[in-house]
Amino acid sequence: MSHVRFRDPAGYTRDGLWTDDGIAFADDTYDPTEVDILPPTDPTKIVCVGLNYADHAEESGMEIPDRPLLFLKPPNSVAGHGDTITLPAGKERVEYEAELGVVIGQQCRNVAAENAEAVIDGYTCVNDISNRDDQMVEQNWIRGKAFDGSAPIGPVVAPPEAVPDDATVELRLNGEIKQRSSRSEFIFSVPEIIEEITAYLTLEPGDVIITGTPAGVGPLSDGDQVEVEIEGIGTLKHDVTTE
Amino acid sequence: MSHVRFRDPAGYTRDGLWTDDGIAFADDTYDPTEVDILPPTDPTKIVCVGLNYADHAEESGMEIPDRPLLFLKPPNSVAGHGDTITLPAGKERVEYEAELGVVIGQQCRNVAAENAEAVIDGYTCVNDISNRDDQMVEQNWIRGKAFDGSAPIGPVVAPPEAVPDDATVELRLNGEIKQRSSRSEFIFSVPEIIEEITAYLTLEPGDVIITGTPAGVGPLSDGDQVEVEIEGIGTLKHDVTTE
Repeated sequence: MSHVRFRDPAGYTRDGLWTDDGIAFADDTYDPTEVDILPPTDPTKIVCVGLNYADHAEESGMEIPDRPLLFLKPPNSVAGHGDTITLPAGKERVEYEAELGVVIGQQCRNVAAENAEAVIDGYTCVNDISNRDDQMVEQNWIRGKAFDGSAPIGPVVAPPEAVPDDATVELRLNGEIKQRSSRSEFIFSVPEIIEEITAYLTLEPGDVIITGTPAGVGPLSDGDQVEVEIEGIGTLKHDVTTE
Repeated sequence: MSHVRFRDPAGYTRDGLWTDDGIAFADDTYDPTEVDILPPTDPTKIVCVGLNYADHAEESGMEIPDRPLLFLKPPNSVAGHGDTITLPAGKERVEYEAELGVVIGQQCRNVAAENAEAVIDGYTCVNDISNRDDQMVEQNWIRGKAFDGSAPIGPVVAPPEAVPDDATVELRLNGEIKQRSSRSEFIFSVPEIIEEITAYLTLEPGDVIITGTPAGVGPLSDGDQVEVEIEGIGTLKHDVTTE
């Protein structure tokens, strides 16, 4: 069953179960709209894959890479379901990117692809918010992709068996579908990505890998409402503001 | 006075003072060569500045940037004084880069340069170990600079007033001086760097900013001994192995 971190009415941070009746913790069940949903994990790092859908590589005018293009989002980038993200000030173009997030369950290094399933705790929804003004002119995407709130995550961590290999990944902007693709379109599979990352970096429990975005990226504006829905996980919702 | 984290003979992790008589904690004084020195801080991220000495920009054939070139090292990159770093396997060229590290003392965002001193806890020595094989072919320097152990840090955090504005930064490889420059050669000052980073990213207590390396970078080989000495801080020593 899917896990959700939330703040209960008394202010305690809880790790509950997402059930059809609401969020269950101990003997209580809470209405998800009446508690603060928190990011479902507290990663030491988010390791990100670029250009992992052939269609997005094409719309970006990029060649298909021969190994995963990697970048990082640090802990300050994490935001949660229901949050209102303040976009970086004074930028012309800040865009959404719906992504499947892989939550790591145990410390690991040098994981062969065939053993990678054992280190996966589950899956979540992520919006890889990207400030193109800076991304296009900097070598490493720090101002472009590592700014505060640039990684809304949630609402839950779903168990791996809940998310089919061809799970639909969809993003809606103010209710309109902007991105819609399937995990079956990945250039590099989740196990291949885990093998490549852990050849260089130790992953910690709670770390997140985000797996690239499909075609259809586009700009965010003040007051926009974003939904990232992934089959088997649920729907991450957040708002954006420019202050 | 400078602080040092260490594991005492009973196995406790302690935050002691680095004195002329040894490491002082409570009523005890320890010989630094007889305890495990740990990284002096536990950063959520290391924010790194590239090309911050005019001489290194020149040896790299790069133009002087008009704002700091930024990249990230995640927590898995952290190593300590006295450690033996395993370099990434099968690479032709992995290099040392001596750097002044700035340790942040409080959570901060949008810090103006003129207020930046207030958020600095102190200074430390860092070796920004760089795998050029991958750095030269990847957009974001993940395999190149974010691998396990790529940021030996220490041995202490020295108070800001101990480190002069023209502090000497020196790296010795197997006892031979390879890099020697001064903080006065910085293109961007520490306050300017803090202003630029915190315009985008919240910094947390214990986070580290590394401030670029001077001319003289060069390759590391199996069995090498590295010393990074910075005036007012001390000497970070570590070994390297290729397994």
